[in-house]
Amino acid sequence: MFEGPVQRLIDELSRLPGIGGKSAQRLAFHLLTGEEADARRLASAIVDMRDQVGQCERCYNVAAGELCAICRDVKRDDSLVVVVERPQDIVVVEKTQEFRGRYHVLGGALSPINGIGPGQLRFDELKGRLEPEGIAELIVATNPTVEGDTTAMYIAREFKPLGMKVTRLASGLPVGGDLDYADELTLGRALTGRSEL
Amino acid sequence: MFEGPVQRLIDELSRLPGIGGKSAQRLAFHLLTGEEADARRLASAIVDMRDQVGQCERCYNVAAGELCAICRDVKRDDSLVVVVERPQDIVVVEKTQEFRGRYHVLGGALSPINGIGPGQLRFDELKGRLEPEGIAELIVATNPTVEGDTTAMYIAREFKPLGMKVTRLASGLPVGGDLDYADELTLGRALTGRSEL
Repeated sequence: MFEGPVQRLIDELSRLPGIGGKSAQRLAFHLLTGEEADARRLASAIVDMRDQVGQCERCYNVAAGELCAICRDVKRDDSLVVVVERPQDIVVVEKTQEFRGRYHVLGGALSPINGIGPGQLRFDELKGRLEPEGIAELIVATNPTVEGDTTAMYIAREFKPLGMKVTRLASGLPVGGDLDYADELTLGRALTGRSEL
Repeated sequence: MFEGPVQRLIDELSRLPGIGGKSAQRLAFHLLTGEEADARRLASAIVDMRDQVGQCERCYNVAAGELCAICRDVKRDDSLVVVVERPQDIVVVEKTQEFRGRYHVLGGALSPINGIGPGQLRFDELKGRLEPEGIAELIVATNPTVEGDTTAMYIAREFKPLGMKVTRLASGLPVGGDLDYADELTLGRALTGRSEL
């Protein structure tokens, strides 16, 4: 239907998460009929990012050099480490501006059904950080899913015997949400985790 | 918040239509943490398309060479021309598989409020095609908007004196739609354009 190079771009765009065939077509035409400089700048930004950005050697966050911006920051508290599944989860925690410790990116969550066992995640790397960095508490911020829960329990079992305090983010009602719209599982967790007023 | 090259890609992605800040961030992380070859192939596809695809010299559709695939097709009916606002509108008409004539891309619609007059659109180029190509009918397929309607009326006024038959796509109820959900304007058009059974 489309000229070869247009169709190839539509195909590539369709592979992106959350971009369907129709959106891919719309984006491709925008990139074709819009400002040429904009389109070329987008292409360069993709290439530059892959060329320049890698993994932080310490916490496995994305990093433009050997260490990420958070690990380079000497004013952060070394003793507190938030453990997340993916680098983008760090951003969400950082936005709260309530945490001034460091992070550790596991690279996913335990999922026996998908063949992801402890060997596929960065638990050993985390163990290697405990002593040299003087880590005292691991705050588990895996997703509130079956896999995230399994991972949290695994961390508690493995790291508490090593003298770590292991905590987990609270699950419960979203702030500003409506009780009517809460699902039973979330409400159940909110009940279990209730706090005294 | 993000490493420079990541933030630059997020900024570029946010400029795309229909991509908000959150989606841009999600796409950037996908391009960063996904397969490197996929990311680089997307960048190349953008550059290749801008390098290789231009405008058809005859109808102003997108074209990989001098003429687009439709203008290169010798089996199409030269006498019928569907007039559209943008190249992507051609795809929509082609998908019906009910039209075997040719096209003309105006490059937009008349919009005095946005300073788009006849001089900004390709009416002269269309006039230049009438005689050499033996065009007999112009089927106006501009959008059913105020601008599209204005453009359609302008085409009728300018091209009927030149001996052209000028028709317009019907406006009315979408097939499979529900009368309950039709807005008054569409319903009004459907009434005006009613046909005898």
